[in-house]
Amino acid sequence: MELDFDKMGGLVPAIIQDYETGQVLMLAYMNKIAWEKTLETGRAWFYSRSRDKQWMKGESSGHVQMVKEVYIDCDDDTVLLKVEQVGGAACHKGYASCFFRKLNGDVTIVGERLFDPDKVYNK
Amino acid sequence: MELDFDKMGGLVPAIIQDYETGQVLMLAYMNKIAWEKTLETGRAWFYSRSRDKQWMKGESSGHVQMVKEVYIDCDDDTVLLKVEQVGGAACHKGYASCFFRKLNGDVTIVGERLFDPDKVYNK
Repeated sequence: MELDFDKMGGLVPAIIQDYETGQVLMLAYMNKIAWEKTLETGRAWFYSRSRDKQWMKGESSGHVQMVKEVYIDCDDDTVLLKVEQVGGAACHKGYASCFFRKLNGDVTIVGERLFDPDKVYNK
Repeated sequence: MELDFDKMGGLVPAIIQDYETGQVLMLAYMNKIAWEKTLETGRAWFYSRSRDKQWMKGESSGHVQMVKEVYIDCDDDTVLLKVEQVGGAACHKGYASCFFRKLNGDVTIVGERLFDPDKVYNK
């Protein structure tokens, strides 16, 4: 199974979904190394564009994502992971999902903040 | 509400999810025009990298996506649309979801094909 990393300069987007509730938790990017690490370890790995390196989700927060199912899209250029989100919060701002804001004319916060980022990342 | 189109050369990824079942249907990209058209019309519009233009999902197949809810991620660079998928199939290969293949060592087709693309696109 070969993903098409060429279309986006070495990256593919990965959609992360809660395997039990179906809630979409986040989107991040994988390079080839992150993709292979994800399959090898059963934990979600991504590529950070700002830091220019792969990293395991949760390596600093402890909020690891345990991969339950892996899907590939029809063009081989996007993946969907169904995961168990350890700690219940995928977003670095402390929410279960990064999509905690709803647009309906105005922007409304619809998610509940589960942790304080200052306490998790600056400990 | 301003999305960050700069991070990816004028595009943001849009995750499309069925508003009733929670199934992730597809991922596509929006430029600023497609994003504004989506909000104005309540139908999903995307940007085609291969054709270098925005297009309304379903404009040739009739499989329009009626936008029910719009979410924005914590970095303002990804959107999540919950939609009603007209015709029940989002994938141009005839499946409900573009993620109709599951990777588990081997690749297995887990989706059911709902239409024949040759009949829908070459009519």
